[in-house]
Amino acid sequence: MKKIAVILAGCGVYDGAEINEAVLTLLHIAKAGASYQCFAPDIEQLHTINHLNGEEMQPNRNVLVEAARIARGDIKALSELDANDFDALIVPGGFGAAKNLCDFAINGTQAQLHAEMLRVGKAFADTNKAAGYMCIAPAMIPLIYGNGVKATIGNDVDTADALQKLGAQHITCPVNDIVIDEQHKLVSTPAYMLAESILDADAGIEKLVSAVLKMS
Amino acid sequence: MKKIAVILAGCGVYDGAEINEAVLTLLHIAKAGASYQCFAPDIEQLHTINHLNGEEMQPNRNVLVEAARIARGDIKALSELDANDFDALIVPGGFGAAKNLCDFAINGTQAQLHAEMLRVGKAFADTNKAAGYMCIAPAMIPLIYGNGVKATIGNDVDTADALQKLGAQHITCPVNDIVIDEQHKLVSTPAYMLAESILDADAGIEKLVSAVLKMS
Repeated sequence: MKKIAVILAGCGVYDGAEINEAVLTLLHIAKAGASYQCFAPDIEQLHTINHLNGEEMQPNRNVLVEAARIARGDIKALSELDANDFDALIVPGGFGAAKNLCDFAINGTQAQLHAEMLRVGKAFADTNKAAGYMCIAPAMIPLIYGNGVKATIGNDVDTADALQKLGAQHITCPVNDIVIDEQHKLVSTPAYMLAESILDADAGIEKLVSAVLKMS
Repeated sequence: MKKIAVILAGCGVYDGAEINEAVLTLLHIAKAGASYQCFAPDIEQLHTINHLNGEEMQPNRNVLVEAARIARGDIKALSELDANDFDALIVPGGFGAAKNLCDFAINGTQAQLHAEMLRVGKAFADTNKAAGYMCIAPAMIPLIYGNGVKATIGNDVDTADALQKLGAQHITCPVNDIVIDEQHKLVSTPAYMLAESILDADAGIEKLVSAVLKMS
């Protein structure tokens, strides 16, 4: 049975992992007959957003503790993730991917990765193990894979331009499809960068999981 | 297009709505071509649990504000739910259903429903509109439908006995199946009362959503 590491950036679209994307990822991994282990960095979130009114709320929350809600408690600190133990990596989106796993949401084209995310992402890249990034998470791809890597964040011109400036070759992609960089065994899909319904997100995520497993 | 009201008890299995159950419910409603609107009571949770270590944490959180994470902000207060606007009702589980929507987790066979949950549950029951309750949420069924109503919470003897004492006729049921009370147009499934994987939960939830839609 193939083992997939899933990195969650918290619990909730505005400050953490997008919940539908995360659950659909786990569902399609399980449906494909693979297993998963969730991980999250044991750090404070950039901030905590009230998802009812969009306002920042206090006190701030911890990424790992909140991500544990999605994983029903079965989650480990990202620092414990050893790529040798897994066949592939998948990173769902949500603003947390751009706020907690890197600082793309603040620094855009000057973005840097969280040190543990950089270590883990590179560990899968350097051993040519398959990986999938969805929604805004592909903003991390050029910082891991370097110049010329192919990725999509959908069709938003400004965000695509920022990805290009970070070094990626951005490919415009509809919500129900994926972009594959065969050389890097790397898959991306727009998910809620474009999804207008859970069905939109589900279609692209199912394809991403399938492609990642096929290459692993 | 049929419209389904979904009541969420927060965001997280130990103090709110079970996240996988909630997302799978929304997925299957959408896959079946129906639409949904999420609701949650605008009240403090019974308590807030750190899902990493199981300990209670402070400050406590608001059920509606946390449930908004699952609904991506598109959620309304339970007090705004008018059964006339919907074809059916579905209530996912998680301990929040037994801690925030009623007090079954504390008071067991002496349980009472939150006033808004009682109003809404009865509004669907009294107009013979279809409803589905999953996981521990069926503990509320006898308090809404009265003596003799058929329901399942899986196969846990003590919990089933408590349901019987509350007035239900408990039917033992495997995780991938449902129990239907035809007279009351009422469906229940064990979900994470028994599920050992997301696939287990998915199987029963898909059947529940299908049966609820068929009867609505």
